[in-house]
Amino acid sequence: MGEFDLLEQLGPFLSGADADVLVGHGDDAAVVTVGGESVCLAVDVLVEEVHFRRDLSSMADVGWKAVAVNCSDVAAMGGRPWVGVIGLSRPAEVPTEDVLALYEGMRAACEEWGLRLVGGDTVDAGALALSVTVLGHLDGDGVTRSGAQVGDRLVLVGTLGAAAAALAQVDAGRTPDEGLLRAHRRPRALVAAGQVLAAHAANALIDVSDGLGADLGHLCAASGVAARLDGAFLPIAPGVADAVAAAGGDLLRIVCGGGEDFALLGAVPAERAEAAARAAAAAEGVPAAVIGEVLVAGAGPTVLLEGWGPPGSPPIDLTGLGYDHYHDSDQRSDEST
Amino acid sequence: MGEFDLLEQLGPFLSGADADVLVGHGDDAAVVTVGGESVCLAVDVLVEEVHFRRDLSSMADVGWKAVAVNCSDVAAMGGRPWVGVIGLSRPAEVPTEDVLALYEGMRAACEEWGLRLVGGDTVDAGALALSVTVLGHLDGDGVTRSGAQVGDRLVLVGTLGAAAAALAQVDAGRTPDEGLLRAHRRPRALVAAGQVLAAHAANALIDVSDGLGADLGHLCAASGVAARLDGAFLPIAPGVADAVAAAGGDLLRIVCGGGEDFALLGAVPAERAEAAARAAAAAEGVPAAVIGEVLVAGAGPTVLLEGWGPPGSPPIDLTGLGYDHYHDSDQRSDEST
Repeated sequence: MGEFDLLEQLGPFLSGADADVLVGHGDDAAVVTVGGESVCLAVDVLVEEVHFRRDLSSMADVGWKAVAVNCSDVAAMGGRPWVGVIGLSRPAEVPTEDVLALYEGMRAACEEWGLRLVGGDTVDAGALALSVTVLGHLDGDGVTRSGAQVGDRLVLVGTLGAAAAALAQVDAGRTPDEGLLRAHRRPRALVAAGQVLAAHAANALIDVSDGLGADLGHLCAASGVAARLDGAFLPIAPGVADAVAAAGGDLLRIVCGGGEDFALLGAVPAERAEAAARAAAAAEGVPAAVIGEVLVAGAGPTVLLEGWGPPGSPPIDLTGLGYDHYHDSDQRSDEST
Repeated sequence: MGEFDLLEQLGPFLSGADADVLVGHGDDAAVVTVGGESVCLAVDVLVEEVHFRRDLSSMADVGWKAVAVNCSDVAAMGGRPWVGVIGLSRPAEVPTEDVLALYEGMRAACEEWGLRLVGGDTVDAGALALSVTVLGHLDGDGVTRSGAQVGDRLVLVGTLGAAAAALAQVDAGRTPDEGLLRAHRRPRALVAAGQVLAAHAANALIDVSDGLGADLGHLCAASGVAARLDGAFLPIAPGVADAVAAAGGDLLRIVCGGGEDFALLGAVPAERAEAAARAAAAAEGVPAAVIGEVLVAGAGPTVLLEGWGPPGSPPIDLTGLGYDHYHDSDQRSDEST
């Protein structure tokens, strides 16, 4: 049974939208209301050897990343990180200095995105794992994955492929480029960009954590639409093409299925898309581009990439392209419910 | 380095009370304010072989327990469980049916205490673990561990020793009593009792999850007081004394240091204590009793148990008595920050 089937089966156990639950399971974060305010709520678990390797990441890197990936979920609702709690599974052999380094990394990321850690639970365990739950404030009711409208333009903020290219170098036995590896170790959460896209009337928003193909596929499925991407506009991170060529990897797979980009992808009304991209780029100091458009869902592939490869190359079906972190597989290992 | 020292060192990384953080780290749950309302926030992690064994608990039991222990934290603030998110670490060999059974157990517990699960993250992992974060509504600002006043009476709702006695039977190679084992498998969160104690002006509240000695010690430390318990009034769960005698265990250790009682312990003004105990017992259908009183902190033990054992027995210092689940050790394995 595939993961997708499992998620479908878990749906009935989870709350959908409700009086005070504006967004239930199945988005980057849930949204609840209290005292007339909307609050989003996301959890991510990082497990050693699945999401990080201690030969590639320091403990401070791991702490940073655990906070960053949750803040990215908040960003993908258009929210502002607020408070968080930590569940730390700590093997007996992990010394106190390492735990302190982990917290130091979390603190640095918290300062970056204005998050405050208000508590947690530390338990003995056989494997090192970190579960972070973050609450965020929303100005509106949150931008979901499910509101994309036919004709919207797809705005991507951030770059693609850096983390996956670094891991491809590692897999090929090469020394990874520091600049690329940094994307794996210290991802950024594009919190300001999320608010900019929300302010530009984005109809849908998602963070690209599993690869552009997979995450755009999630957005399309949730919105009941299809999408076309223009390969000429994909913002490939500097150094990725050379690194992948040298490592003997597949550039398309790294760029569109690599995962860990933590870019933001918004479906923005056509007339506001260019302005949204410019404003988001300015807010974050990272590239942003209009990379495609939202189409009517039809009989064809949900996510089609045009203009990739030499002139005259056929369009590519990106549906289902995803990356399983350290394992070269089309199966996604992580599932958000 | 002991766990207590670690907690002290982690303090600076965590947020204390703040404009919109009424209770920061170090209590059963944090309390934050939004839109003029107070919300409490707790996380607990359950790890296979540390907090549960699959030969003793079904997957549904594990799911139930993960929800119940968090609801108990909410109860210990005087709150009402509201929404939760789940971080599930799933080894490849755990079949889908088991995941569904886990969720079925969570659903049953959610229905019991009015919690709605609004999302989560499921990741590949080497070990089965479940991290649940629960938000609760509060009528006031939450009853902390730190407000106990000298002269308050200690009200205990629930019973002591059942789960630990069952595990002592297992450790002794005996078949555990079903009734006792149920306390380990399917703990109850005394949510109604927490609200009753809050309504009876409890100055401090904690759930007894690490053993009465340890948790009363936490309450005393946070409040800057000491406590005296009367052994004659400790509500030992039915069957515990016989089971422990037959298993060759130490009854005091099981009753006051056993853990997993998920009783509620409140420091209530003397004139309201008996009424609070009666009302809490009625609300839950479990025993409740006034078991001791709050004293000025002095040079002596923080938690002193009188009246245990034959007439004329000396008082017993319970400070630091705790139980490490499956490991017979005085060291606590779990630390809430």
